[in-house]
Amino acid sequence: MFELLTTDPKSRARRGRITTSRGTIETPAFMPVGTQATVKALDNRELIEMDAQVILGNTYHLNNRPGMEIMAQAGGLHRFMNWDRPILTDSGGFQVYSLARIRKVKEHGVEFRSHLDGSKMFLGPKESMEIQRIIGSDIAMVFDECPPHGAKPKAALAAVERTVRWAAECLEQPRAAGQQYFGIVQGGIDPALRERCARELVAMAFDGYAIGGVSVGEPEPEMFRAIELTEPFLPAEKARYAMGLGTPAQMIELIARGVDMFDCVLPTRVARNGTAYSRKGAYNIKGGFAKADFGPLDEGCECFTCRHHTRAYVRHLLNVNEILGFRLVSIHNTHLFLQLMAETRAHLEAGTFDEFRAAFIANYVPTKKVLAERAAAETLLD
Amino acid sequence: MFELLTTDPKSRARRGRITTSRGTIETPAFMPVGTQATVKALDNRELIEMDAQVILGNTYHLNNRPGMEIMAQAGGLHRFMNWDRPILTDSGGFQVYSLARIRKVKEHGVEFRSHLDGSKMFLGPKESMEIQRIIGSDIAMVFDECPPHGAKPKAALAAVERTVRWAAECLEQPRAAGQQYFGIVQGGIDPALRERCARELVAMAFDGYAIGGVSVGEPEPEMFRAIELTEPFLPAEKARYAMGLGTPAQMIELIARGVDMFDCVLPTRVARNGTAYSRKGAYNIKGGFAKADFGPLDEGCECFTCRHHTRAYVRHLLNVNEILGFRLVSIHNTHLFLQLMAETRAHLEAGTFDEFRAAFIANYVPTKKVLAERAAAETLLD
Repeated sequence: MFELLTTDPKSRARRGRITTSRGTIETPAFMPVGTQATVKALDNRELIEMDAQVILGNTYHLNNRPGMEIMAQAGGLHRFMNWDRPILTDSGGFQVYSLARIRKVKEHGVEFRSHLDGSKMFLGPKESMEIQRIIGSDIAMVFDECPPHGAKPKAALAAVERTVRWAAECLEQPRAAGQQYFGIVQGGIDPALRERCARELVAMAFDGYAIGGVSVGEPEPEMFRAIELTEPFLPAEKARYAMGLGTPAQMIELIARGVDMFDCVLPTRVARNGTAYSRKGAYNIKGGFAKADFGPLDEGCECFTCRHHTRAYVRHLLNVNEILGFRLVSIHNTHLFLQLMAETRAHLEAGTFDEFRAAFIANYVPTKKVLAERAAAETLLD
Repeated sequence: MFELLTTDPKSRARRGRITTSRGTIETPAFMPVGTQATVKALDNRELIEMDAQVILGNTYHLNNRPGMEIMAQAGGLHRFMNWDRPILTDSGGFQVYSLARIRKVKEHGVEFRSHLDGSKMFLGPKESMEIQRIIGSDIAMVFDECPPHGAKPKAALAAVERTVRWAAECLEQPRAAGQQYFGIVQGGIDPALRERCARELVAMAFDGYAIGGVSVGEPEPEMFRAIELTEPFLPAEKARYAMGLGTPAQMIELIARGVDMFDCVLPTRVARNGTAYSRKGAYNIKGGFAKADFGPLDEGCECFTCRHHTRAYVRHLLNVNEILGFRLVSIHNTHLFLQLMAETRAHLEAGTFDEFRAAFIANYVPTKKVLAERAAAETLLD
């Protein structure tokens, strides 16, 4: 179901294709996040226009609302939200660990209280795959344990053991028609744990593999290290997915490290705060500099927003808290992430990824936070 | 600039056409309200698709933000928001009376404090028309005094006198290219005052006439009375505009009373609260009845929302506070208001308005509030 089309001679980058019963996903691919059956602020038409090939749905949130009774009556998420391209669902594990309260990790899953109303709930491999079957996603993620950043070695080991055991349980569950299952490799930044987790999951022959335990608050160098510790043990003939990542520059660097798929809430989340991405980095459009700037959000950008509206107009909308402001920045940012993947694919096909990567990274100014994280890592190496 | 095409033999309804330098407005017309340079939750493409012929801009709000310095640099509101069809601007008078604090009514305008930051401001005929000239609207409204519902006779008289005097001052101000000026008739529900105000304004030969002092909290029967007291004194060869009105049923009834133009925030404002309009009246889509209702918001509706999405989906989006929920209901409601005007125009042309009106009103269930207002009025007549 994954086809490796080209490999880059100067990096570990790959050009590939995932085939699902609802169409193909050309990789490297960015997947906009539709947590609650909508990519925040966007509609399907806008997503199709920017050629989103696949979007994410969220097991934990969809199970809360609208709930699986309505989801089943609707005939699954595709019909519920009228999206006929592929959908990938996460397992809900990440939300149980990051959102829910009063957790008790048990043999076959996690007991927790809903972050909405405090009601007692239970989610494990069986429950998660059942929900994902009702949702009818094209790619379902196994239910894993994702320990927080900075977890103790003992906790990291326990999480890997549980993740592997639960992965095997997931494989036994019934699937929706044509549904693929992806395993999730945990193990923090412990080389032996990452290798062990990867090898045990690979032995189970999942349809693809995610690298989990990233985007949990760790600094950028640590995130890269987790990816580098995992990737060598993943089979070349299966897709690799870095969960919850990243910025434009991070995605380019992760592609160079052998990653095929990404998902991230950044383009729509920061948009609602006024942050627009450009090829030179992120900036806040609410700044005074944009007051009478009648150019586009990003020079040369061909998204709906940049073709029709100016920085001055978008800034005004955000300043007066108008929904259209959130919409226009969300469109622009999501388009940029997707466009970047399309360009990366073209460069991989043309054999020019190395130059593209170098030029993109040289041009892209990371945030102060990322720069500080890099500086701290340099100091540690000295 | 207004052409009267047909008059209905069985009511005072008219089919007309306003010509502006940016295109024609077929009347009866509904004008979506774009207070702060955007019709809330909608974009221009959606407005064009539902064939909005003209939208409103708001002098008071636009003067606050983005302010006239940026508006002038942008080249006016059409270019600022990239809307090339006609725009009508109100004078800001209504907001000064309803939003601003610490007012002092002076000879040539009103001194007040901004509702945003309390800064002292002054708006009168000269200032309002200057702002509307910079905005570059196709139709500018005169700066009037709009007394609140229940104002004492003395206050109502003073408001009419000021409104007439200020209207004359407005006429002396320079205009944007091709800009039309509409007068506003005040006078509450005092027949003599309404007649006097109308006659004095008509003598000044404005390009069109608004009936003001409605939609200020008065019950429906009083609103109809204010319109009926004014309309006979307005010239047939000029457009008549009922400011801030109304519901679908009210618009049909006002058309039958000789009104050509409407504007109202209802379709987008109530949408954000989950209220959807249908041909049977308004209802709240958040209700449990819609949980697993996979039909459209309104049977037979051809709007973007009803063609693509179900009640169950829209309800879910609103329940989880997703922007797309606000968007989809705003699209549906605004489309319904515009579609209703298109159908009314067709029926006026075909000579079937009377039947259309009767059928529509018979089918449309007013809100409890409107029903109570009607019952109270009946009691008074007994």
